Amino acid sequence: MASLAALNSNLFNGGCLWKYQDELKVSKAGKLRIRVTSMASSSPAQSLQFADGKANKLDKLRVGVLGASGYTGSEIIRLLRNHPYFQITLMTADRKAGQSIESVFPHLVTQDLPNLVAVKDADFSAVDAVFCCLPHGTTQEIIKSLPTNLKVVDLSAVGIQLQDIAEYEEWYGQPHKATALQKEAVYGLTEISRREIQSARLVANPGCYPTSVQLPLIPLIKSNFIEVRNIIIDSKSGVSGAGRGAKEANLYTEIAEGIHSYVPEIEQGLSEAANSKVTVSFTPHLMPMSRGMQSTIYVEMAPGMTTQDLKDHLGNYYEHEEFVVLLKNKEVPHTRHVRGSNYCLMNVFPDRIPGRAIIISVIDNLVKGASGQALQNLNLMMGIPENLGLGCLPLFP
Amino acid sequence: MASLAALNSNLFNGGCLWKYQDELKVSKAGKLRIRVTSMASSSPAQSLQFADGKANKLDKLRVGVLGASGYTGSEIIRLLRNHPYFQITLMTADRKAGQSIESVFPHLVTQDLPNLVAVKDADFSAVDAVFCCLPHGTTQEIIKSLPTNLKVVDLSAVGIQLQDIAEYEEWYGQPHKATALQKEAVYGLTEISRREIQSARLVANPGCYPTSVQLPLIPLIKSNFIEVRNIIIDSKSGVSGAGRGAKEANLYTEIAEGIHSYVPEIEQGLSEAANSKVTVSFTPHLMPMSRGMQSTIYVEMAPGMTTQDLKDHLGNYYEHEEFVVLLKNKEVPHTRHVRGSNYCLMNVFPDRIPGRAIIISVIDNLVKGASGQALQNLNLMMGIPENLGLGCLPLFP
Amino acid sequence: MASLAALNSNLFNGGCLWKYQDELKVSKAGKLRIRVTSMASSSPAQSLQFADGKANKLDKLRVGVLGASGYTGSEIIRLLRNHPYFQITLMTADRKAGQSIESVFPHLVTQDLPNLVAVKDADFSAVDAVFCCLPHGTTQEIIKSLPTNLKVVDLSAVGIQLQDIAEYEEWYGQPHKATALQKEAVYGLTEISRREIQSARLVANPGCYPTSVQLPLIPLIKSNFIEVRNIIIDSKSGVSGAGRGAKEANLYTEIAEGIHSYVPEIEQGLSEAANSKVTVSFTPHLMPMSRGMQSTIYVEMAPGMTTQDLKDHLGNYYEHEEFVVLLKNKEVPHTRHVRGSNYCLMNVFPDRIPGRAIIISVIDNLVKGASGQALQNLNLMMGIPENLGLGCLPLFP
Amino acid sequence: MASLAALNSNLFNGGCLWKYQDELKVSKAGKLRIRVTSMASSSPAQSLQFADGKANKLDKLRVGVLGASGYTGSEIIRLLRNHPYFQITLMTADRKAGQSIESVFPHLVTQDLPNLVAVKDADFSAVDAVFCCLPHGTTQEIIKSLPTNLKVVDLSAVGIQLQDIAEYEEWYGQPHKATALQKEAVYGLTEISRREIQSARLVANPGCYPTSVQLPLIPLIKSNFIEVRNIIIDSKSGVSGAGRGAKEANLYTEIAEGIHSYVPEIEQGLSEAANSKVTVSFTPHLMPMSRGMQSTIYVEMAPGMTTQDLKDHLGNYYEHEEFVVLLKNKEVPHTRHVRGSNYCLMNVFPDRIPGRAIIISVIDNLVKGASGQALQNLNLMMGIPENLGLGCLPLFP
Repeated sequence: MASLAALNSNLFNGGCLWKYQDELKVSKAGKLRIRVTSMASSSPAQSLQFADGKANKLDKLRVGVLGASGYTGSEIIRLLRNHPYFQITLMTADRKAGQSIESVFPHLVTQDLPNLVAVKDADFSAVDAVFCCLPHGTTQEIIKSLPTNLKVVDLSAVGIQLQDIAEYEEWYGQPHKATALQKEAVYGLTEISRREIQSARLVANPGCYPTSVQLPLIPLIKSNFIEVRNIIIDSKSGVSGAGRGAKEANLYTEIAEGIHSYVPEIEQGLSEAANSKVTVSFTPHLMPMSRGMQSTIYVEMAPGMTTQDLKDHLGNYYEHEEFVVLLKNKEVPHTRHVRGSNYCLMNVFPDRIPGRAIIISVIDNLVKGASGQALQNLNLMMGIPENLGLGCLPLFP
Repeated sequence: MASLAALNSNLFNGGCLWKYQDELKVSKAGKLRIRVTSMASSSPAQSLQFADGKANKLDKLRVGVLGASGYTGSEIIRLLRNHPYFQITLMTADRKAGQSIESVFPHLVTQDLPNLVAVKDADFSAVDAVFCCLPHGTTQEIIKSLPTNLKVVDLSAVGIQLQDIAEYEEWYGQPHKATALQKEAVYGLTEISRREIQSARLVANPGCYPTSVQLPLIPLIKSNFIEVRNIIIDSKSGVSGAGRGAKEANLYTEIAEGIHSYVPEIEQGLSEAANSKVTVSFTPHLMPMSRGMQSTIYVEMAPGMTTQDLKDHLGNYYEHEEFVVLLKNKEVPHTRHVRGSNYCLMNVFPDRIPGRAIIISVIDNLVKGASGQALQNLNLMMGIPENLGLGCLPLFP
Repeated sequence: MASLAALNSNLFNGGCLWKYQDELKVSKAGKLRIRVTSMASSSPAQSLQFADGKANKLDKLRVGVLGASGYTGSEIIRLLRNHPYFQITLMTADRKAGQSIESVFPHLVTQDLPNLVAVKDADFSAVDAVFCCLPHGTTQEIIKSLPTNLKVVDLSAVGIQLQDIAEYEEWYGQPHKATALQKEAVYGLTEISRREIQSARLVANPGCYPTSVQLPLIPLIKSNFIEVRNIIIDSKSGVSGAGRGAKEANLYTEIAEGIHSYVPEIEQGLSEAANSKVTVSFTPHLMPMSRGMQSTIYVEMAPGMTTQDLKDHLGNYYEHEEFVVLLKNKEVPHTRHVRGSNYCLMNVFPDRIPGRAIIISVIDNLVKGASGQALQNLNLMMGIPENLGLGCLPLFP
Repeated sequence: MASLAALNSNLFNGGCLWKYQDELKVSKAGKLRIRVTSMASSSPAQSLQFADGKANKLDKLRVGVLGASGYTGSEIIRLLRNHPYFQITLMTADRKAGQSIESVFPHLVTQDLPNLVAVKDADFSAVDAVFCCLPHGTTQEIIKSLPTNLKVVDLSAVGIQLQDIAEYEEWYGQPHKATALQKEAVYGLTEISRREIQSARLVANPGCYPTSVQLPLIPLIKSNFIEVRNIIIDSKSGVSGAGRGAKEANLYTEIAEGIHSYVPEIEQGLSEAANSKVTVSFTPHLMPMSRGMQSTIYVEMAPGMTTQDLKDHLGNYYEHEEFVVLLKNKEVPHTRHVRGSNYCLMNVFPDRIPGRAIIISVIDNLVKGASGQALQNLNLMMGIPENLGLGCLPLFP
């Protein structure tokens, strides 16, 4: 309990590590329940459909951004600039209420956007959908209080994602405040749960770590290409995942030209783990870069499998996906090759240890790891092409 | 063969990855022979001795730096500035022959140093010892041609380190040119082979990757605290390890704000590995930082062992060492906390997977991973305190 | 002569500093002829017009990128991804001929683009317009050899921009090879010369330094708000301006965590400057960042003028411009607030020295300083809205 | 008033910009009184003298560091590691009282140092000298309360440096609390005021901006080589100058890959400046680097002077100085060439504008710009060689 609270407040407050705890669901028993429940019914390779009537009728859909003064909030704004059907009509930021967005994010000075308001003063009758980018703690009650006709994508630190209410209370030491929401929420790993997302009103958006890990692993686990034991995940994250809060640990002088991992905080209280079904080793590292995430995943292949088998399976699984790309040959995914874009690049490599393979996946933690996937999900929920607003290519160099 | 040549020319020419191939000795059969041969006779915890008579009699020992125009060469110069007994009297750099050191390294403008000369024009009668920082290929013949009274520390890319001549030919596709040297050379992982180094004339200095990996692993393997199977090493290196050669891949624009691994190049031709005694998985990653190296090492503990056992053993093993420091409690080693210094910081953490542990070690790749350890070795070889010239604390921030 | 050649080869080969020499036209006599010739007829504040018939008839305009393996080339590709009317059908790169673009720029792996060909093998009948991103030296002859029906925007190092042929020979030590082109070319500082660009077949695209300097200065000089003497320009550039060539000076290790200026190379042979009409002091600095440029410009106001007068004038001048933005109040332009976008932000500040003012302008050197402005120009030349393809907001953080 | 307070709290709290305001003493009347008072009696080129008896008698001098939890404090500790006569016996940090230094600065884990205590609990009878690294506001009263036998070097934000008490009250809106100290304090620009420092008990250590500006300018102004009008200073600083306080503006994500200046805050209320004797234009810029400072200074030469005259004069003036180095020929000072060292490199270049010159100086803002110069001063005050503890060469790369 204490360790998680410390993690939250010290390291990744409002960021995406917190989400990892939640979504990969490492319970006290040390189990990882990778979410495979929805996969049976999902159809990852289906082609995109345009729900013609729906979108055409829109003047523009009115979108609210709750928590617009953080990095995921500003990233939503950036992406919506190029969206043909969505228009931001509401932005909240309690501590910045009354200010213009350019006073908070000067790079948005050219945009004509509403001023920031406090959540309590927001007029939710003026929006059709909201992105919820609020910090942990406040999210549940706010989402619960929203008009039920609103579509909601929740990017918050924790929010509504835990399926198991009892487990929530165990983790957070307080009763879950939105158990009904909990049951309604669909986990928004788009390529894995597309069908459920299309009909959802409320989507719990995955964090950056889970996205980078689950996109390659779920197809392989589901089809028994790899063992569920001894999965070792060495993840490297850019600093923006830690949010915009002023913390000594995230100062330029404390981050530039060096790296470190977060092992001990995460592992506190977990070392007694045993008897798990799926247990992973997960070590996040903080990199001197603003954006980007790489997960280097060391797996044990199922008997008889080769790295080519794994590769072929992932290639087939994501063949028709626009945003998940299996690289060819021995090409190595680089984080800089997805910067600013919604892509996830991955590839599989032989390990020197017989029977093992190395999987590398990269995303931009703020796009496919947060706001980009959130937009992809809202597109699906509104019945319009899921790639709208996501056409920016990576910014390199 | 081809893959190694490509690795050398494309990635880490003159750098330290090359050395890894060599020292960790991953043969075609995929074996890692971690060098444990000398450990029986070494005494890691012995206290430093001052060979009084010897050093006091010196005016100053005359030192040559072969290959002074690269980063390891300039680092030797930096360290020797504060050395009480060593004085640089010879510096070679074939392509910069005739130039002053400040024209090559302007940060050395304040130093009174000899001009650079070509190796062929060097007067080796004027030096007592040399650091050999030459690129791979030329080293063997040059070292062979040196007066045999010279003490030599070889930091070159490959040089004299392969113990098994046949293996050398297999790897490099050409006959080893200095087989006698090969037999004479002592592997210079100081804390592990101190006794042999003290009496050596010729020391093969470890590269940065092997140093960061072997310092924590050798004591644990030697005393059977961990299994030799399923050792997974995820290493992160600063860019200076790639040397000063002008390569597109190492431009600021290609490195800043991103990371990537080198998996495929390394693994080419190795995937058929099998039947090995000690096999490791090793994945180097290139970080956007000039200096620093972290190895995150995932190991399987021997039956009955706990992470505390591993920690206690490493703590005892390095208890009297100045430069190898086991951190207390859950303190995490950061690369920025050793920058510019000869320290290796390490710690052991529980893994979420039962029976496994995570070991993290950090060094400055140019100091303990190269020039600092080389100086430590030459100090030992000359019978003077091994920490002379190595007193600089880490530069932070 | 020698100094410029040295500058070109040593520092900014293929980059944008070279252009500065050319466009700001500092002749041996030390004069700066800021290009004011076209301003009388230009109408900076005119609103954008859609030449309806023209664009609608297009299936898609076929565009060629000559020199697609450099940073300005890949930036053109990035921007055109979101362009509704332009389609890349030809890409050349002599040294990479036969390769796919993803082998040169892996971040473009998701794009369906033609393979690279050598210029000599290019089929120019298959394109309607070309962006010329070639290095200095080859440009003139290639452009001269193009079918005359092609629209051409030249981003090359030097190319066709010098108005004064005699001056060209003086500078470059060889006869100008395309004097006819020289006369035809229009200088493409969009907001200043919009009208000429609209009817041009051949546009010489400004470099990054001149763009950042001329956008604020030209309106002020033209209307006599500032003196033309004692203009001091302290410019700071990201490294991508130096191109993708493999040079020791541009390695990550040589750039990160430090800055320096280029004073002496630029000034060689210029110190005898005298009797000039417009003379500026210009000192470029290289920053540890991939993209971005700031020019801090210290000017002497005309008698009676205040900083508010300057500000009002610039505000009026650029009032209806989309991409040139005068910040309000005391807001300071930051390079990170234009990264990846075509914006130029500027503001005017009082100087502590009476009668002087400080002007700061920022651009992304690869967008408004190169490929973005080039696209803006081609849009104009084709009679379509000049902001097409330029809708990406800045990527922050 | 308000603007300065805002500057202090928002930007450079505890850093060195604040000091600039003070030391360069830009009063409301816009005057810069560069401190030339002590120069007549100082002898910059005198050779270092060893006050033999004094130092030899010491066991070790006991040194206290007040405010040891900031960057200048930790830098003092780093430098003293290699000092033969000084030993740290007291370290204070009010908010970290009771903690070990390694809990605050893990890179000092290898050092045997006293725990941090609160200033109020410090036993000043146990120290012979103190470095005062406290934030502005608390400094005056604490220094006033120290035993008068202590030698004191004050690196604090403002402290005791203002000569003119009335001016202090005007600036800071409160009475000066240590007017007696004010009169006693000697301004510690070592090479300029060496003689006064030698006999001082209390030294006000210059900040980084004034150090980088005054070292080149004072000799030139004093001997009338340059005009005192139209001095334009464009300074670029690393982020560590802003201190270790947790501020959003100094997060990695807000600093990396971009630059900006601080113009407006500094200029607020100063635009009415007039009738000054020495007026400078000063614009600080924040760079994406942890350490380093460059001042690019644009000056008007006195009639008849050439850049070579300026260069010769500076060369003569600093000829026998160890830490101030005039570069030869056209060599450009780089900040990375002084990183971690106490050097100031400078050079003079011709300007394209006739009659003007460009002077560039670089320092490490934490060493010569703070803790290094402070140690240099205390050495002088104790009668020992002023370079003791300052022997580290720059860390490059």
